[in-house]
Amino acid sequence: LQYGLYSSFMGCFIYCLLGTAKDVTLGPTAIMSLLVSSYAFHDPAYAVLLTFLSGCIQLIMGLLHLGFLLDFISYPVIRGFTSAAAVTIGFNQVKALLGLQNIPRQFFLQVYYTFSRIGETRVGDAILGLICLIVLTGLQQMKNHIPRVFRMEKLSVRISQLIVWATATARNALVVLFAGLVAYSFQVRGSQPFTLTGTIPQGLPPFQPPPFSKVTPNETVYFGEMVQAMGAGLAVVPLMGLLETVAIAKAFASQNNYQIDPDQELLAMGFTNLFGSFVSSYPVTGSFGRTAVNAQTGVRSPAGGLITGALVLLSLAFLTSLFYYIPKAALAAVIICAVAPMFDARIFRTLWQVKRLDLVPLCVTFLLCFWEMQYGIVAGVLVSAILLLYPIARPQIKVSEHETILLQPSSGLCFPAIEFLCDTVHKQALSVSPLRTVILDCTHVSNIDYTVVMGLSELLQQLRCRRISLIFINVQAHVLQVLLAADLGRFCNVSSLEDAGKSCEEEARTANEALFDGSDSILPTSGIIQ
Amino acid sequence: LQYGLYSSFMGCFIYCLLGTAKDVTLGPTAIMSLLVSSYAFHDPAYAVLLTFLSGCIQLIMGLLHLGFLLDFISYPVIRGFTSAAAVTIGFNQVKALLGLQNIPRQFFLQVYYTFSRIGETRVGDAILGLICLIVLTGLQQMKNHIPRVFRMEKLSVRISQLIVWATATARNALVVLFAGLVAYSFQVRGSQPFTLTGTIPQGLPPFQPPPFSKVTPNETVYFGEMVQAMGAGLAVVPLMGLLETVAIAKAFASQNNYQIDPDQELLAMGFTNLFGSFVSSYPVTGSFGRTAVNAQTGVRSPAGGLITGALVLLSLAFLTSLFYYIPKAALAAVIICAVAPMFDARIFRTLWQVKRLDLVPLCVTFLLCFWEMQYGIVAGVLVSAILLLYPIARPQIKVSEHETILLQPSSGLCFPAIEFLCDTVHKQALSVSPLRTVILDCTHVSNIDYTVVMGLSELLQQLRCRRISLIFINVQAHVLQVLLAADLGRFCNVSSLEDAGKSCEEEARTANEALFDGSDSILPTSGIIQ
Repeated sequence: LQYGLYSSFMGCFIYCLLGTAKDVTLGPTAIMSLLVSSYAFHDPAYAVLLTFLSGCIQLIMGLLHLGFLLDFISYPVIRGFTSAAAVTIGFNQVKALLGLQNIPRQFFLQVYYTFSRIGETRVGDAILGLICLIVLTGLQQMKNHIPRVFRMEKLSVRISQLIVWATATARNALVVLFAGLVAYSFQVRGSQPFTLTGTIPQGLPPFQPPPFSKVTPNETVYFGEMVQAMGAGLAVVPLMGLLETVAIAKAFASQNNYQIDPDQELLAMGFTNLFGSFVSSYPVTGSFGRTAVNAQTGVRSPAGGLITGALVLLSLAFLTSLFYYIPKAALAAVIICAVAPMFDARIFRTLWQVKRLDLVPLCVTFLLCFWEMQYGIVAGVLVSAILLLYPIARPQIKVSEHETILLQPSSGLCFPAIEFLCDTVHKQALSVSPLRTVILDCTHVSNIDYTVVMGLSELLQQLRCRRISLIFINVQAHVLQVLLAADLGRFCNVSSLEDAGKSCEEEARTANEALFDGSDSILPTSGIIQ
Repeated sequence: LQYGLYSSFMGCFIYCLLGTAKDVTLGPTAIMSLLVSSYAFHDPAYAVLLTFLSGCIQLIMGLLHLGFLLDFISYPVIRGFTSAAAVTIGFNQVKALLGLQNIPRQFFLQVYYTFSRIGETRVGDAILGLICLIVLTGLQQMKNHIPRVFRMEKLSVRISQLIVWATATARNALVVLFAGLVAYSFQVRGSQPFTLTGTIPQGLPPFQPPPFSKVTPNETVYFGEMVQAMGAGLAVVPLMGLLETVAIAKAFASQNNYQIDPDQELLAMGFTNLFGSFVSSYPVTGSFGRTAVNAQTGVRSPAGGLITGALVLLSLAFLTSLFYYIPKAALAAVIICAVAPMFDARIFRTLWQVKRLDLVPLCVTFLLCFWEMQYGIVAGVLVSAILLLYPIARPQIKVSEHETILLQPSSGLCFPAIEFLCDTVHKQALSVSPLRTVILDCTHVSNIDYTVVMGLSELLQQLRCRRISLIFINVQAHVLQVLLAADLGRFCNVSSLEDAGKSCEEEARTANEALFDGSDSILPTSGIIQ
């Protein structure tokens, strides 16, 4: 418990200085806690060292301007993630709203156990929770419908409107305060119908460098071994932290109409983790629930983090005893009201109307996020990437058949396309009889890589065994340079279709001569031809 | 130990029927064993169920023809992987060649401990290992230089050449047999200078369905909970299995000049795992070492698997006692000779000459494979994908400035490019004064997605706040359809540059009128403009 609190304040201060989204709150999250627990072996020393190293890696990524990688998180992925997060985080609070105990964390099990054990609902928690929900929704609606104040109104009208506005804006704090007072008054009278937050250990964390080695009475674990043990965690934790932060920042930036700078976000997270590791923090990331509460409360700039951070520090030092009386049901109501507007059902209809293909990454992200948030985001990004890469892997190849077979790829040739190109050539050139010369028109091929060169080389060899010529026309200068550097053997390049005809005759003659020479370099062998 | 053997034969039989690469051998591998151990909690029940489910997933992938995903493994990635695998697997055998005990598995630690403890070398093992290495290399060379036999040669010459050829071809089996006999003769005399393979438990595995639930005296773990517990393993194990098999198959296919069909490979692996789970197998994949031994031994078709599989079954049933005498050093020599030719140092020079950019995925894969094979392949694929995606994310945008600013993206607009496009427009349109109309020439934009539509919508809104017009020209029909479906508000599309001029004047007039109307939909607010 205390490590969660130690991780909560550094992000507020540093994000205030370096962050680019007004709503985002850095801190410990459920996803990151689970990730860290699987790489840190439930040992604080590993977790704090992981924080330090993740911070360093994020700083390096920020300095290298690797933030552009986040352009690859598309809008449907973000919408899918936020809608699923709103559902899971909201539902996660239902158990607190109803006062249910010992419900598992995983979403599907949670839904099952919450409904199957709904009979165990604590009446006090449920009533308080519902009242808080109604009050919060009412105040929210009121705030949305406050009529515009004009200067000519009477002072009394303006003051009453100011009071309504202030109440509606501070509704989250007021509801929690009110619920705490109710719980306290019940406690004084000797009965307690609510589930309370309970005791939180008091005291600030020590300020010390992260543990670069671990000394126990029995043995010393050195830095190298600790790093070795954490393994993939050193890649997964910084990347997932970044992904989560930026997914959240992008979602709120698009909702509240501002822009974020991923490189700057990386620096903010990097410094937070770096300095956090000196106060025993574990790796932090953008927190969806807290960011939503922040946005709904009406935060205007990252400087809000100063107050949040100061409050966490104050709480750790002095106030934990006061938090004892806050009913969990009231906190649950605040969180549910904050995340509810993030659920966006219209996006499904909009995408159906505008661009149906984008429903695929949306649905993949949305559904998989219920399993695990990080799988949902990663799968969504992968599906989007596949949709981007598909045209590269399967370029349009225009085939014209005359005396020769003319193939014209409509765009560049990159490595995922080479198998497809070779298959097309095989199909076109070998399936028909008589065998005809194949001409590859490279007009639109502006780039070529080594895999393509190797594929073309194999293709040339296979066709030559069948005594079919493959002639390249209109090869661009820098593509030709690559093809020549690779030394493709009898590579034949001409600049126009007419020259191709002549060249093809020559090629055939040379091949015939070579055949009668008995040279085995071009003899067909069954192993080569598929 | 016995589960490793139980996993070794099913792949041989099924791959013989369904495989498309002559050399590949399916079976338990070091990488897969480690992966399985981390998802199966060292419990055979989980491992066998994971085999069954991985098989099902691979079959489904094969039936859905998802094998095309493997086109994204480029040649440099495969070369990097095979070269690193040759080094690590080869070096992994050095400890057996020298008779060193208790060397850790991880490559870097292995190198360190092998050299620091080289003084503990067992003389017998080292001498036997070196002799085997020399004999194997000699026979290999001999096989490569056997002169061609012509029909007119004398019978004695032809017979002697046949003997040399047979010896050279069967060299691996002969060396192991010879070393086993030497070890046996030492054992009979009462001394043993070699480290032997030792006792292997005898007997065939039971034929039974995989455990769909786990019953222990204390509790019953149901199917759902087992699946839940394995979590990401259900995605990682089938994918890594596929990746490893196809990486190996592609490497040997390119070396031995044949082609593979990834979908068929998926079916082969799927059926192997599916049926394997009935004989207590754990998930299998292509084995680099065994495949290399297969290829070097001169296997001609996947039917070789029938013999391998039958030998494993025979061994399990009867022969394990005979294998007791095989010296580990002789096996190590066979494996080292098999993997050595897979190390390809020339590829670095070739890529430097032909296509330097391809050195990046090569080096990333090569270096990270020394850490963990699967990280190397995944990182290499990711780096290749980034190199493919970079031109999509940063398309060339031609900017011409006259009375208006004309922006011409040279290729399609996909979601990773939208931030870049917006930044370009902001830079071009807002940094200069007086503010001028922006014209976006969509001639080359053949496709558009919802993220781009949202980005353009925000851009339109931001520019309108600054009273700058954004006019689209030459929008292709289906792109226009998407833009209109998204209902962009005042979206202005004209078909030529001349019309754009007129339209721009109109737009400005309407905007001015709207401004004086006092309508706040287009009033600039500081929150909207960046």
